[in-house]
Amino acid sequence: MTEGLLVPVDSRSFSQRLRAAQQTQESLLCVGLDPDINRFPDGFARTPESVADFNRAIIEATVDLACCYKPNMGFYLQYGIPGVEALARLRDDVPSHIPVLLDAKLGDISVTSAGYAKAVFETWRYDAVTVNPFLGHDSLEPFLAYSDRAIFVLAKTSNPGSGMLQDRLLAGDGASETVTMAVVRHAREWSSGGNVGLVAGATWPRQLAEIRQAAPELPILIPGVGAQEGDLAAAVSAGLDAEGYGILVNASRAITYASAGRDFQQAARAAALALRDGINAARSGAAG
Amino acid sequence: MTEGLLVPVDSRSFSQRLRAAQQTQESLLCVGLDPDINRFPDGFARTPESVADFNRAIIEATVDLACCYKPNMGFYLQYGIPGVEALARLRDDVPSHIPVLLDAKLGDISVTSAGYAKAVFETWRYDAVTVNPFLGHDSLEPFLAYSDRAIFVLAKTSNPGSGMLQDRLLAGDGASETVTMAVVRHAREWSSGGNVGLVAGATWPRQLAEIRQAAPELPILIPGVGAQEGDLAAAVSAGLDAEGYGILVNASRAITYASAGRDFQQAARAAALALRDGINAARSGAAG
Repeated sequence: MTEGLLVPVDSRSFSQRLRAAQQTQESLLCVGLDPDINRFPDGFARTPESVADFNRAIIEATVDLACCYKPNMGFYLQYGIPGVEALARLRDDVPSHIPVLLDAKLGDISVTSAGYAKAVFETWRYDAVTVNPFLGHDSLEPFLAYSDRAIFVLAKTSNPGSGMLQDRLLAGDGASETVTMAVVRHAREWSSGGNVGLVAGATWPRQLAEIRQAAPELPILIPGVGAQEGDLAAAVSAGLDAEGYGILVNASRAITYASAGRDFQQAARAAALALRDGINAARSGAAG
Repeated sequence: MTEGLLVPVDSRSFSQRLRAAQQTQESLLCVGLDPDINRFPDGFARTPESVADFNRAIIEATVDLACCYKPNMGFYLQYGIPGVEALARLRDDVPSHIPVLLDAKLGDISVTSAGYAKAVFETWRYDAVTVNPFLGHDSLEPFLAYSDRAIFVLAKTSNPGSGMLQDRLLAGDGASETVTMAVVRHAREWSSGGNVGLVAGATWPRQLAEIRQAAPELPILIPGVGAQEGDLAAAVSAGLDAEGYGILVNASRAITYASAGRDFQQAARAAALALRDGINAARSGAAG
């Protein structure tokens, strides 16, 4: 597990690198890369072998508008070897000043988490990964051993059924807290210099505001705008930190499949631009 | 998601096929296949390209002693493409009457879970997969759509820190329950004919007994004997169902790395035989 400490991608923390990318790009937009070959545009073979090239086309179209790219592992594994080859190529296709965050919601006993951490941080050379807190702190330690990378801990997921466990109140001596807020409290304890963030869906702006209040300093990945139809302005307002940063607003399908025609790059760029500007407008509104 | 319904591996439910394998083999032993090339025995190149062949050698040595094989995805992804190729070959290397269960602790929003389900059940053609309940029921529905396969839901994991969330008491109107027992209750509701099991570590025999009591009919995958040193007899006694079945006792490293010499197949076989017989002895003890 110490190998990761010997191959830093950069001397800055993940949070510092993310902030630099956000300032350079004037963008809090994270572009999700979730390949679905059945939705590939005209001009692309609808085969697993096209996944990496489609990703590159989307990256080219949005590279000055995104502060982060987020591939979701499930979409790649379904395509077998060509899908995994696309994951392996992604860090080379995204300019080095823009972080790549793997969405995989990982969490296993520590010896296994060490294998995942090696896959994400060494084999694929990504900058951050989403993790599931259900197994507890020891399941996440192997990821935290890579001090220049980051984990984003699921706190309140964007899906309709997320409340089953996450919204349940925990019994306790003092004031009770939800499972979500217990996770937020633990995640703050695990953070040591820009290496821990949270995930909170745009579909739950009230919980997002509560999470930001409890964790003023942690970056929050916000999925659920775009195809999942979370309210952008409410989510941005709820999630921003005191400096007007601290969030990554993710959209995937709304950008990558904005058009199924040969104009898909222009359409993806237009969708990314509109979303980036919408986020920035909401920031101005929140600051005013 | 209906595709899975069109390509059943067998007309029986997963639980029926598992039970048949357990009776044929007279075994409740699940052999975990967690490759670590640094521990490969003499005669194997310590390279990712050896992973599939090492698996096959372990399967050959244990094929009449195991009721299930369980690869853990984290160990494969760390080896990149050759690791994923080994996952893809596994269902062909395990005789068709023995189920293959992927340990990956998956769980994502439904559109993504559908991708994972396709990877596990179609691309790799496995029989079952472990899932994480943190995101709720809708995150697991795409797996349940494959009615002839199964999910094993994490209830109480074997790791030392599993209590952080899993042991917490939930506030409620009536009698309180832990997060673990809420998961067990939900998992029973999701089960429709042999397609839902649970995961409970051998390291927590008291919770395992409580889980069995609350879910008399669900199969339970029990990791944590062997390298993690859970008490075998206590775990078997706590986990058995009323008919003396209902559990899969997993061991990985204790079998696969029983020897680093050229006798590794004999050593793996001896370790698997001792564990299978130990489980059966504990069953007799529990029945007597």
